[in-house]
Amino acid sequence: MGSRQPTLAVVGATGSVGTVMRELLTSRRNVWGEIRLIASARSAGKQLSCRGEQLTVQELTPDVFDGVDVAMFDVPDDVSLAWAPIAVARGATVVDNSSAYRMEPDVPLVVPEVNREALDYRPRGIVANANCTTMAMIMAIAPLHREYGLRELVLASYQAVSGAGQIGVDTLHDQLSKVAGDRALGSRPGNVRQAVGDDLGPFPAPLALNVVPWSGDLAADGWSSEELKLRNESRKILALPSLKVSATCVRVPVVTGHSIAVHAVFGSELNAEEARQVLRNAPGVILVDDPQAGEFPMPIDAVGTDPSWVGRIRRALDDPRALDLFITGDNMRKGAALNTVEIAELLAAEIAKSQG
Amino acid sequence: MGSRQPTLAVVGATGSVGTVMRELLTSRRNVWGEIRLIASARSAGKQLSCRGEQLTVQELTPDVFDGVDVAMFDVPDDVSLAWAPIAVARGATVVDNSSAYRMEPDVPLVVPEVNREALDYRPRGIVANANCTTMAMIMAIAPLHREYGLRELVLASYQAVSGAGQIGVDTLHDQLSKVAGDRALGSRPGNVRQAVGDDLGPFPAPLALNVVPWSGDLAADGWSSEELKLRNESRKILALPSLKVSATCVRVPVVTGHSIAVHAVFGSELNAEEARQVLRNAPGVILVDDPQAGEFPMPIDAVGTDPSWVGRIRRALDDPRALDLFITGDNMRKGAALNTVEIAELLAAEIAKSQG
Repeated sequence: MGSRQPTLAVVGATGSVGTVMRELLTSRRNVWGEIRLIASARSAGKQLSCRGEQLTVQELTPDVFDGVDVAMFDVPDDVSLAWAPIAVARGATVVDNSSAYRMEPDVPLVVPEVNREALDYRPRGIVANANCTTMAMIMAIAPLHREYGLRELVLASYQAVSGAGQIGVDTLHDQLSKVAGDRALGSRPGNVRQAVGDDLGPFPAPLALNVVPWSGDLAADGWSSEELKLRNESRKILALPSLKVSATCVRVPVVTGHSIAVHAVFGSELNAEEARQVLRNAPGVILVDDPQAGEFPMPIDAVGTDPSWVGRIRRALDDPRALDLFITGDNMRKGAALNTVEIAELLAAEIAKSQG
Repeated sequence: MGSRQPTLAVVGATGSVGTVMRELLTSRRNVWGEIRLIASARSAGKQLSCRGEQLTVQELTPDVFDGVDVAMFDVPDDVSLAWAPIAVARGATVVDNSSAYRMEPDVPLVVPEVNREALDYRPRGIVANANCTTMAMIMAIAPLHREYGLRELVLASYQAVSGAGQIGVDTLHDQLSKVAGDRALGSRPGNVRQAVGDDLGPFPAPLALNVVPWSGDLAADGWSSEELKLRNESRKILALPSLKVSATCVRVPVVTGHSIAVHAVFGSELNAEEARQVLRNAPGVILVDDPQAGEFPMPIDAVGTDPSWVGRIRRALDDPRALDLFITGDNMRKGAALNTVEIAELLAAEIAKSQG
């Protein structure tokens, strides 16, 4: 015993995902020695609480990684690209929540409940965390895949505004304040746009009283980057490089909690009750499937919780190998901060073991 | 000339769909002689405007149909079941917007742009109008089917609260007034439920800051009646009795405008630009497909307009015979009142022709 507890760095500690990371580090069983909170020069010097301590935010510099064992990054892609290799060079293993490294063949994309073993091969010292929408979905699909052999996914998302950061949340609430109670809105084209005004925040259109079938950047052939992430990341996490995936990503006026309507085609026939049993036994999944009692997965219930909520399990009427279901997960927790923390904790356990 | 213009009855004239029917009768080219507004005893005697006239609402009685040529019904299923045969016995042809008759083999289910010819066989004197979600979707899918031969539909809906009537709209606005601007909501489970309180109106859960994967009644094997309508009505309208259809129906905090994410598999290969051209030429469809310019179909733009708005056209990356797209339509207009009025106008033209 008496082994040194590993040192953790949280890069992007002042952001909205960083805030959830600090909450999780406070509420979960502690495996860390020193924790360093790191952010841009603008936030350096700020006092933030974590694990019951008041910590001073340190500026992102190469030296700040000296002595760090594990560094969790939640920063934009370009910052990750620039700084993850520096952290690695100073001796840290990086768990990165940006999309910068996810599809690199020598960077594992890890969901502990699904492909824990992928963590063992990380030649670059970087581990990637999946996109928030992929994450909620894959938690329920992976156990079904193990049982029935996944062939195809058709996905439609209902994505919350907090996926776009605090500015997304503020934008939605500002817009809702302008339209709430005005019953005449929503009966004529342009009414909502006029009431909301020009401040669309990070979104291409008003979110209040609307749904916006767009998320991310424009990729080839009319696809959004978010839709391609769902395809590419699902294939990588499940180790199914030719899995058929079609996704349509849609932003909805929900604060937190990404939902996905899933049509999943498998290699073998299945029945709904057996599938429910698979999901009941799956780690990180909670089954809520009693429509008569008003029980189905919804953002207002899943927010602030760890698991993926899964329900509306139906065998397709025209294909005994296909299942329709609905999934909701907290995009800030398992979809971002929680999975990153879980990977970091696995690394901490590895360090403890190697010292044991 | 000098032929008598036909007499129209509007049954359910005081409801929210009835209100849109009166607006359409006012704004469209007039083909009607007398118009009678009909409602329950509770509303009888009320004065309502239609076609620039003030009309007195008449109570629903058998006699009120004497001399009526065409009767548009927007009432609950049980009222349609009881009263449509009475209207027919008095000499009227009924265009019914309930779901009571839609799947009857001797009642045509008509979308004029899609299966106008079905109107000619109506042995019971009743014509049915499709479900609002089916309607928005079928307008865009039918022309693609004619070109490429439809094999399968996977659907996820984003349905507006006005589909549940004025009470749905009032409920959403009441709930939004309670949560708008409260940025702390939506970060903990139960917060929104608590803020909204017990008044859920016609919905099984709060709609403010939420999406609810349920619409309609519980049918067999966990399906909702709304989901089965999408399957059954699509099959009937397109005359494809074994079309594969899987749908997940979800209510969202939008006032008016049902949206549907569609994955459509066809019999022959296609490309997205050709499919766009098919949709550009399709009647009752408007193509909005320029994501870079922020142009995609959305409820706040489609509300108050007649066509189905279609965009996000993408050929599936893993199936050259499949197309992914997003469709929005005003559920009160084409989804309900407009299609009913259009069918009634076709019947009026028939009457005019038979007198000519």
